[in-house]
This record gives sequence, C-alpha cells and structure tokens, in this order.
Amino acid sequence: MTDLPPEVPALCVVGTVAFDDVETPSGTREGILGGSATYFSVAASHFANVGLVGVVGEDFPNRYRSVLSSHDVDLSGLVVQPGGQTFHWSGRYEGDMDQAETLKTDLNVLETFAPELPSAFRACPYVFLANTDPHIQMSVLEQLEDPRLVVMDTMNLWIDIARDPLLAVIKRVDGLMINDAEAKSLSGEDNLIAAGRALLDFGPRFVIVKKGEHGSFLFSDKRLFALPSYPLDVVVDPTGAGDSFAGGVMGYLAGQHAQRVDDVCSAMLYGTAVASFTVSDFSLDVLGDLDRGTLEERADEIRRFVRP
Amino acid sequence: MTDLPPEVPALCVVGTVAFDDVETPSGTREGILGGSATYFSVAASHFANVGLVGVVGEDFPNRYRSVLSSHDVDLSGLVVQPGGQTFHWSGRYEGDMDQAETLKTDLNVLETFAPELPSAFRACPYVFLANTDPHIQMSVLEQLEDPRLVVMDTMNLWIDIARDPLLAVIKRVDGLMINDAEAKSLSGEDNLIAAGRALLDFGPRFVIVKKGEHGSFLFSDKRLFALPSYPLDVVVDPTGAGDSFAGGVMGYLAGQHAQRVDDVCSAMLYGTAVASFTVSDFSLDVLGDLDRGTLEERADEIRRFVRP
Repeated sequence: MTDLPPEVPALCVVGTVAFDDVETPSGTREGILGGSATYFSVAASHFANVGLVGVVGEDFPNRYRSVLSSHDVDLSGLVVQPGGQTFHWSGRYEGDMDQAETLKTDLNVLETFAPELPSAFRACPYVFLANTDPHIQMSVLEQLEDPRLVVMDTMNLWIDIARDPLLAVIKRVDGLMINDAEAKSLSGEDNLIAAGRALLDFGPRFVIVKKGEHGSFLFSDKRLFALPSYPLDVVVDPTGAGDSFAGGVMGYLAGQHAQRVDDVCSAMLYGTAVASFTVSDFSLDVLGDLDRGTLEERADEIRRFVRP
Repeated sequence: MTDLPPEVPALCVVGTVAFDDVETPSGTREGILGGSATYFSVAASHFANVGLVGVVGEDFPNRYRSVLSSHDVDLSGLVVQPGGQTFHWSGRYEGDMDQAETLKTDLNVLETFAPELPSAFRACPYVFLANTDPHIQMSVLEQLEDPRLVVMDTMNLWIDIARDPLLAVIKRVDGLMINDAEAKSLSGEDNLIAAGRALLDFGPRFVIVKKGEHGSFLFSDKRLFALPSYPLDVVVDPTGAGDSFAGGVMGYLAGQHAQRVDDVCSAMLYGTAVASFTVSDFSLDVLGDLDRGTLEERADEIRRFVRP
C-alpha cells in the first residue's frame, strides 16, 4: 500500500467518550473514564496509529485526556463542547455478569453531536463506527474518501427505533460487529447461526457476533469461524469488553494493512486478547498498561487454548 | 494394551433407555426411542464395541431393541423387568431451545433399578456412568475390575438432594462431564472458569463442562481447552445432545485405547461431531444412519471452523 501522510491515522473511530459509574461484584467506581471510542482507541493503539472522533464537555479532565494521548491517540477529532457536560453512564453487573443493567444515562453533549472529521481523517483507510444513531454513522461514511475497511457496531435501541436508517448503513460497510441478542433481534432469527447468515444478506462482507463470555463468531460467505473468550476465573468489570475487542481487531488489521476474511479471523485473536485484559480491572486500569509483547503472549495462549 | 476377550466390550455405559415425548418448534413426537444409554451407545458404536446396562419394561418393542442391536450394541446388560413399564419422559423446547422444560417424568422400572453388570462387562476398560442416583453410580463402580477410564455425568437433582454420595463418586472417577448450570451449582461459583477449576479439586483428573450451543470446555491441571459446537442453523431436537457428545468422546477414546488429557481434547471433536447430527432430527433418526466417514468429515469441518 502507499504510505499514508503522517497526519492521517491508520485507523479512526467515531464513538463516545464517557464518565462511567460502575457497580460489579468486585466493587464500585464513580466517574471513571469510559466510552466506546475510549476503549476502542486505547485497545487499538497497541497495534496502529489511531484517531478518535467524539465529543466531551468542559468537565472532561486533563488527566483523562492524558490517558488517551499517552497512547498516541490523535485527539484532533475530540470536540470540547463549550458549557457542555460529558456523557455519563451508570450501570450494574450481577451474578455471571453477562449483561449490564443500565441505571442511568445522561446523554449531555451527545444529544447534539454531529461529528465532523478533521480533514486529515477523511483519508483514513480503516474506520470503526462505534454504536451510535445510524444517521450519525451515515454522515461519517459520507465524509470518508475511499476507505479500505469500514466496520460498524450498533445496539437494540437503533434496531427498534431506526431500523431503516440502520439497514442503509449496514449495506455500505464491510463488516458488522454486533452482540448475540442484537443479531437475533435484527435478523428476526432465534437461532444464532441462522441470524449471522441472515445478516450477511443485508450487505456486509462479514459479520462478527460477540457472545460475551462465550466468545465470538465470524460469518462470511466463504468461512465460518468460532473463537472462545479467554478463560478468566475473575471478571472485575465487563464494561468496554466489546469495544476493546473491536479495537484489537481493527488495530491489528490496520497495523497489518490487511482486510481479507482470513485476516479478520486472525485479528479476532488479538481482539479477544485485549478484551481479556480490559475486563480484568475497572476502566482502562490494566488495558492502558499493556505492551505488545504481553498481548502476543496472550494471543499465543489463546491459540493453544483452542487447538484440538 | 492386551487384547480384550471378545465377550468384553471396549466401552460400557450404565444409564437410561426411555420412551420420549418431545415438543420442539420443528414438531411433536410421542413415544420415540430415547434415554441416556441409548444416545450414548449408538453414538459410541461408530468408534468402539459398546455394552449397555439399563432396564426397560415389557412394553419395550422389538423395533427399538433392533435399533440398538443393529449398531452391535451388546444388550446382555439390558434387563427387561417382568410386568414393568419403560421409563417415559415428556419435554418441550422453545425459542433458542437452550433448555428442556420437563412436562412429565414416569420413572416406572427405574424406581427399583439396581444395575448388575454382566460378568463379562466387569473387565470393561472404558466406562460411562450416565446421569443417575449417585448410590447407583457407586454400586457400578464397585462392580468394575480395574477400569482404565471412568467418566460420569450427573444433574441438579443429585447435587441438591444427594451431594455427599455424589462427591464420593466424583472422587473416584477419572472424568466428570457436567453442564454449565450444574458446574456452577455444584462448585458454588458464578464464574464458569472458576467453577470448572473448583470441580477438579473434588478429585477427577479432568472436567468437561457442556455449554449446549456454546460448545464445551475441558479443565485439567495441565490444560484448558475450549471447543465450540458445530454451527447449525436449524436444531430440530436437542434431546440426547449431551449423551451423544459423551458417547462420541468415550467411543473415540475406547477405539484409540487412549486416556491422556490431550486425547480427551481430540475426542471432544468427535463428541461434538456426533452431537451435531443428533440434534438435526428427532430421536436417533439421523444419528443411527451415520457412518464413520461422515463423522470424520464433520470432525474435519470443525477443525477448520476453530482454526484461527
């Protein structure tokens, strides 16, 4: 591939930067750094240069900005809304922690967010559209100049209230990343394999279904692939697992200049590796301290774990 | 290994032979051939000579006996109780069919069943104790002469009402095969990885946790191994999946004269392959018609499915 100009990140993500209040069996934290773009970009930063597009309020502290910039995340697309307050999510996990119970969502600056990519980001070859209103995802797509690989996430809210705009976005991306309940709901299929296959008919070249502790599936016309989650006997906080997984997948692909389905399968190993560190502590407490060698070791461990 | 005398089966199973009434989204069947020992022995018969120990009533028809004998299952341990009626189970599956709802259980001849192994079976090297009262499982253990590999199943009922006798059996077997909910309940751990590890402390050399559509885990001191289920977009009837899986695992091991943990991991491929056929139709309608070549192809497909 042609080398990118230095101001163009190899990978960009459009998503949320948030304050999280989290309650899990391991403890409680308030106002910790969270958000899809945060988890994604720090996870991906271990593999590629990442640009982040999002919005925060004036209350967003420098120490959180430093967490991102210390991973060389390009923050030229992070808007600070004057007088605004940062998106704030509160949630609780119980029992086997397979699902978050949302206690409160203060959209704040997200309510009026209409992301505009910095001009250098428009040439970005790898793009991840984190879960957000599909109209916003479409507006980002329209700002991109010939990206090599675009992958998107979504959630039940948009499946329920904005199905048509969502389908229009899905039709234009290379990959859809979605959790199992959403895959069933979007496709109308009770069986997850039928659901994954049905989603391919909506247009993307591949669909990755995230199953939390049960791992992930890749669906494509040529190949089905299953990968378990890394076996952890203590999960401290599942928040950010899916976005870290996506960050590992997309970061690995961007770092390798790769986009074939077989490459995506390899990338899922790294997504799984990164996510396993994310959930082993609150916020980015472990994820932020990783190095590439530790991730390679974890990926090797996962390879051994799945080899019959 | 020394060759077995021809009258000693390589593998024997002690479990139920049943009439099943089953309701699934694909249809309804009444009085079809079921039971743990039935599914196990037909699944295992593709890999090794199997002896079945169980009980039926005088109402057990010859055509069902023929299904078993056509797979060369040694029925010298299948007792016909004079005047008795065969165990009868009725159940229903809905939605994603991850759990059976039991509508009715008529124990009938099972109520007084105290299995006595035919003398030739006592020297059987590979033994599977299907789910039953742990006192019965123990009595079978005590009839065995130096088996090479004994694996057992159990269920929540015994965990709840016969925990101590159950633990006494678990302590004496090589392997425990159990589903995810039972693993959590028996160990008292919410996290499945912690649960699997905790069960090793009860004595067995390995623990296989069955997770239905999410596949299976093997836990041992030396190795953890995860295997997804074969991706089926239509599951007709999940009844017998776990017992077929066990039959594939134990049949493969008995056929290979193998018992190391690495062998058990390979065997899980075959268990998964067999179970994928079982659930694709009612009763033994597909399972019974398989040949070894078809199973090898399915095992190869699973190998490709899990290769990163």
